[in-house]
Amino acid sequence: MKNTIGNNVTFTLFGESHGSLIGATIDGLPSGIKIDEDFIENQMSKRRAKGLISTLRQEEDIPNIVSGVFNGYTTGTPLTIIIKNKDTRSKDYSKIKDVPRPGHADYSAKIKYYSYQDYRGGGHFSGRLTAAIVAIGAICTLALKEKDIHIATHIKKLYKFEDDEFDKDNIMKQFEILNNKDFAVLNEKIEKKMKEEIDNARLNLDSLGGILETVVLNLPAGLGDPLFNSVEGMISKALFGIGAIKGVEFGEGFNFANLKGSNANDEFRVVDNKVVTTTNRNGGINGGITNGMPLVIKSVVKPTSSIAQSQNSINMESMENTTLEITGRHDPAIIHRARVVVDSMIAIVLMDLLVTRYGQDWSKILCED
Amino acid sequence: MKNTIGNNVTFTLFGESHGSLIGATIDGLPSGIKIDEDFIENQMSKRRAKGLISTLRQEEDIPNIVSGVFNGYTTGTPLTIIIKNKDTRSKDYSKIKDVPRPGHADYSAKIKYYSYQDYRGGGHFSGRLTAAIVAIGAICTLALKEKDIHIATHIKKLYKFEDDEFDKDNIMKQFEILNNKDFAVLNEKIEKKMKEEIDNARLNLDSLGGILETVVLNLPAGLGDPLFNSVEGMISKALFGIGAIKGVEFGEGFNFANLKGSNANDEFRVVDNKVVTTTNRNGGINGGITNGMPLVIKSVVKPTSSIAQSQNSINMESMENTTLEITGRHDPAIIHRARVVVDSMIAIVLMDLLVTRYGQDWSKILCED
Amino acid sequence: MKNTIGNNVTFTLFGESHGSLIGATIDGLPSGIKIDEDFIENQMSKRRAKGLISTLRQEEDIPNIVSGVFNGYTTGTPLTIIIKNKDTRSKDYSKIKDVPRPGHADYSAKIKYYSYQDYRGGGHFSGRLTAAIVAIGAICTLALKEKDIHIATHIKKLYKFEDDEFDKDNIMKQFEILNNKDFAVLNEKIEKKMKEEIDNARLNLDSLGGILETVVLNLPAGLGDPLFNSVEGMISKALFGIGAIKGVEFGEGFNFANLKGSNANDEFRVVDNKVVTTTNRNGGINGGITNGMPLVIKSVVKPTSSIAQSQNSINMESMENTTLEITGRHDPAIIHRARVVVDSMIAIVLMDLLVTRYGQDWSKILCED
Amino acid sequence: MKNTIGNNVTFTLFGESHGSLIGATIDGLPSGIKIDEDFIENQMSKRRAKGLISTLRQEEDIPNIVSGVFNGYTTGTPLTIIIKNKDTRSKDYSKIKDVPRPGHADYSAKIKYYSYQDYRGGGHFSGRLTAAIVAIGAICTLALKEKDIHIATHIKKLYKFEDDEFDKDNIMKQFEILNNKDFAVLNEKIEKKMKEEIDNARLNLDSLGGILETVVLNLPAGLGDPLFNSVEGMISKALFGIGAIKGVEFGEGFNFANLKGSNANDEFRVVDNKVVTTTNRNGGINGGITNGMPLVIKSVVKPTSSIAQSQNSINMESMENTTLEITGRHDPAIIHRARVVVDSMIAIVLMDLLVTRYGQDWSKILCED
Repeated sequence: MKNTIGNNVTFTLFGESHGSLIGATIDGLPSGIKIDEDFIENQMSKRRAKGLISTLRQEEDIPNIVSGVFNGYTTGTPLTIIIKNKDTRSKDYSKIKDVPRPGHADYSAKIKYYSYQDYRGGGHFSGRLTAAIVAIGAICTLALKEKDIHIATHIKKLYKFEDDEFDKDNIMKQFEILNNKDFAVLNEKIEKKMKEEIDNARLNLDSLGGILETVVLNLPAGLGDPLFNSVEGMISKALFGIGAIKGVEFGEGFNFANLKGSNANDEFRVVDNKVVTTTNRNGGINGGITNGMPLVIKSVVKPTSSIAQSQNSINMESMENTTLEITGRHDPAIIHRARVVVDSMIAIVLMDLLVTRYGQDWSKILCED
Repeated sequence: MKNTIGNNVTFTLFGESHGSLIGATIDGLPSGIKIDEDFIENQMSKRRAKGLISTLRQEEDIPNIVSGVFNGYTTGTPLTIIIKNKDTRSKDYSKIKDVPRPGHADYSAKIKYYSYQDYRGGGHFSGRLTAAIVAIGAICTLALKEKDIHIATHIKKLYKFEDDEFDKDNIMKQFEILNNKDFAVLNEKIEKKMKEEIDNARLNLDSLGGILETVVLNLPAGLGDPLFNSVEGMISKALFGIGAIKGVEFGEGFNFANLKGSNANDEFRVVDNKVVTTTNRNGGINGGITNGMPLVIKSVVKPTSSIAQSQNSINMESMENTTLEITGRHDPAIIHRARVVVDSMIAIVLMDLLVTRYGQDWSKILCED
Repeated sequence: MKNTIGNNVTFTLFGESHGSLIGATIDGLPSGIKIDEDFIENQMSKRRAKGLISTLRQEEDIPNIVSGVFNGYTTGTPLTIIIKNKDTRSKDYSKIKDVPRPGHADYSAKIKYYSYQDYRGGGHFSGRLTAAIVAIGAICTLALKEKDIHIATHIKKLYKFEDDEFDKDNIMKQFEILNNKDFAVLNEKIEKKMKEEIDNARLNLDSLGGILETVVLNLPAGLGDPLFNSVEGMISKALFGIGAIKGVEFGEGFNFANLKGSNANDEFRVVDNKVVTTTNRNGGINGGITNGMPLVIKSVVKPTSSIAQSQNSINMESMENTTLEITGRHDPAIIHRARVVVDSMIAIVLMDLLVTRYGQDWSKILCED
Repeated sequence: MKNTIGNNVTFTLFGESHGSLIGATIDGLPSGIKIDEDFIENQMSKRRAKGLISTLRQEEDIPNIVSGVFNGYTTGTPLTIIIKNKDTRSKDYSKIKDVPRPGHADYSAKIKYYSYQDYRGGGHFSGRLTAAIVAIGAICTLALKEKDIHIATHIKKLYKFEDDEFDKDNIMKQFEILNNKDFAVLNEKIEKKMKEEIDNARLNLDSLGGILETVVLNLPAGLGDPLFNSVEGMISKALFGIGAIKGVEFGEGFNFANLKGSNANDEFRVVDNKVVTTTNRNGGINGGITNGMPLVIKSVVKPTSSIAQSQNSINMESMENTTLEITGRHDPAIIHRARVVVDSMIAIVLMDLLVTRYGQDWSKILCED
């Protein structure tokens, strides 16, 4: 199950950066989910490289649904999308065949696959495959919206700059704004500074990373299973499938180390005959199972590994030390493009959790209540 | 696969805090791994509650291997251990039947399982099940040691106190010291302060959490698979199976947000005809696959949820607000006991990675090189 | 997933013939299934060796539920049963350590596990493990009965003798009779002849096999998934987990080779506003998915491999030819005891199919219609 | 894992009969397997409809490898093939939208997927998807041939006609002949009669089925796992993924019911310092694990469900009885085309068994001995 994830809704990715196409299959989606091509395009657009804060490689990235949809609705059988690769310049990569780029999978992939690895642009390890995550994630996000479940992610931190907190009383409005932005930051002044910082990094032939915070609203309590299909376990496994992510936390996450139990616990209250917690430090999950409060997930995106500075590396064939200059087209930061990838990956996991809990009949998921 | 994890080496946990026993099955271990009962007991001992910094519930926790071992070696068929529950005082828990303890799974489990959930001591969600993780993990740790692979974890941070960094030049010695301690801290002065802080928390009817840092030495490069069986994904899913863990990161983890690409990348060098990186900010993993450098994993343990202070909660039957005082025997901190659980969980995942890569024949794993 | 089967309801077997105990874990059963100890004992009894047509090894085989049941109902968390081994005479087996018994797994297991295999009584490959299948299967059968789904198996053929067909107009009555018999044959005269034939085989130091036919009534249409989670695929994989089974077919099965399409197809009709087929040659399954007609499964049980006659074999250590006489206590036929094992295995798969289709909430499975 | 099968080598099918394309992904193949396009085309050709004994729908069926191959060798990452649908006449199927074809999945799919099912030509349930099985199976067959493992299947029985047995002393020659034929029968006179019988069926607007016998030579002993990853269980689950297959047996299979233990057991002998059995009634498998003898598998292919005769059926919308005449282009028999599908499916499972046993490094599989 190397490139497949999920229990009842399973998601498989295939393709390489410089092959003819990339694609993905999602299996186990209930039948009857309405496909909205505009929405899918809208999600794809958020990942697309735009302006100087992203790579100059321009890809149309139009996902073509080749199975699993009939008359505008999912059929319930495997749904596959393919995305053609167009703007591939393989010559850019020939020189790194034997010289691994620091921070990338070139070396570990060579050890694993020997000389058979497609080294062009990272091959199967390329961030380009995340386009297929977004296409499938868009369909899952559409499905979740039908059930009034909403996801939004903002750039919580980029280098030295931190965005505002979500405002509980205004959160649906904030979600709407974020989900219509390419650079998802709540505070516009901070947004401007972050973009400037990325542009600085570009000028300095360097790159930046940051922290994404994702919130999911209206998830029912009772999703997830104890121990190894915990909501945390399932989401983290999926998010670590995105190359640049090196840490995942829920609720207070690593900040729990600074709290005492009396502050870390979320107390229960009945409000309007519904159960809530007065705080949400556990990020909507107790014992691996949703408790009905908003899901809160943070993930860290490391600085783009491809930088234009000269770096030390080795020649894997001659086993000699050398230096490497990466001359292709690269992103000074990818966190703003990674945002919709994280949204999408989480949407895919949530569909799996819902189908696991409620079964394969879409009309019965969350509708009987 | 709710309570089961793994691809080729699969691990299943069963039992409840106040049932007759708890246990675990590991399937897919190669035949021919030598069982050392003393080593298993030594690992169990590290998890056992001792002194005032832990709960007063005393459990012998003697794992009984009931299958999968013959004449002192693993047979290759499922290995099951059982551990009897002895010191159970079910009356302590009767009052929380309808009143969920903040921070615990009581409420989410009730929504999931209705009134059928075994509420006594958290039932299947109890931290007590981690004893079975340690027993099975001990066997995997023994196996890894046969291949010269070593794991150690220290308490990197407890509330305000931070332990020293590992010393690269002295690390095998530090591993040995840590693995013979119940309270795994490198700096003895810091250790003393941490213990005092835990004792303070106990006196204040409160609890503390912290951060564990785990390092694995001598793992071969080439373990793990792209995307969803990444080493990060597999380890994080396993660690989030431990109730109190709310965040997992690799290498620099969340600190990557503070770095630039030029500092975040680990440059390759050939030293003594072997490939190394001059730094290890990626924690031994590139593109989800090991690169031969030490694995570095940090996980956060939240403060023990059970505290003796009065807390707000609800009655789930009457749907009214109420308060709750937890009067059982509880730990003011569990991080020192959780340490060996984390070691064990990681050892189990590493066995899975090795068997996936090298196959079922133990004599051929890492020995042909 | 070697010794584990299932998607949403997963079943794991452990133990060896001459170890301290055998056992099984079932995970993913919905909470709220009522446990009836008498029914479980009744099912266990059908597998127990009785009289001269079975082995003289007497085992009480009392399954002890050690997790997953609370106050008489399933909790929804892993349910484990253990069964102690009592009447083990390990000395009987010492001589076959190096001399594989024809028809058994001794040789293939030695190649797979080397000298670490527990050779006593076949170790993990022993038919004794089927006792744990029956115990867990009994719980699943109870659950299915709550939903008015019924399973019965008869010995369709033993050596030269064939039982009657089921009588469509009287089938529930036949089910009741069969499910209260130790030797499940519809026609009592045939039953008598079959038993005599088994006794003859015993006297001739030989053994017999036969064909079991299983029918399941009242399964809803729509269970199963296309291609690899077809009902046929899932049931066959489970049944081949029973050592002696070497063939599985559905509906007309291998007899389809003798039919033309015009006779092989089952025509649809509306009767009393319900859809039925006028024949059931496809055994209740079209395209891998149930169609609402009775499920019809046949499985062949090969003659017991252990016979008291002298047989040719080899010494695996010296690599020389030798002969072997098996002197332990063995069954001249196991088909009558295998019957309830097949019932049980199918019940376990059906629970998985129901939970996959309808979700984890038992009260919603088949009750909304 | 509905449309995915396998443990370490996983195989996923997608597409519908009248969509734009069908395809498949295989993940977990070792890197370094040489791709031979001519061999793949040769295998595709065996499945292609030719002459009056097959459908008149003509499909080029050219598999396009879109990922996982680089410079003519597998990379080790997911290998996807797509096959365009060309000769689709959707109008043929509009009338069966509400009227299920007997023997097909139309009715059960409608119950499962409601009105969202793609009813054109059976949609995802179409036999057309088997083209993708053949394409991927061809790559696995190539790999197995590199390790000197060979597969051949003949039509053992078609209606009243039975082919000869394999000739042990001449079997590699017979394999070569069979693998170069479109209609795989050993005895040419029988072959002629079978073809005539199929032509008769066509003239009578009827169809025929039969039994395929597959033999695999040179498999190592020790493949497979006890219980649920038995070789029988894994192969049967895969074969039942082929729509028309309704029974699978190994070795003597259902004929074991006619044997006594003294004839059913295969006695071991040492010949030329190698272990063999003097007979092979267990079909190369003991206790679910290969014993080094040839694998022998029989599978029954039911008569083609689509026949041109008028058949009784129902209108699923109006719930009234009606009749149905299928006017599309159909096969009077598919067993000769199904042959290479069975070969292919088995090749895929064998690759999974080899990688599970020996690991991911192709150069070490079977080469060290």
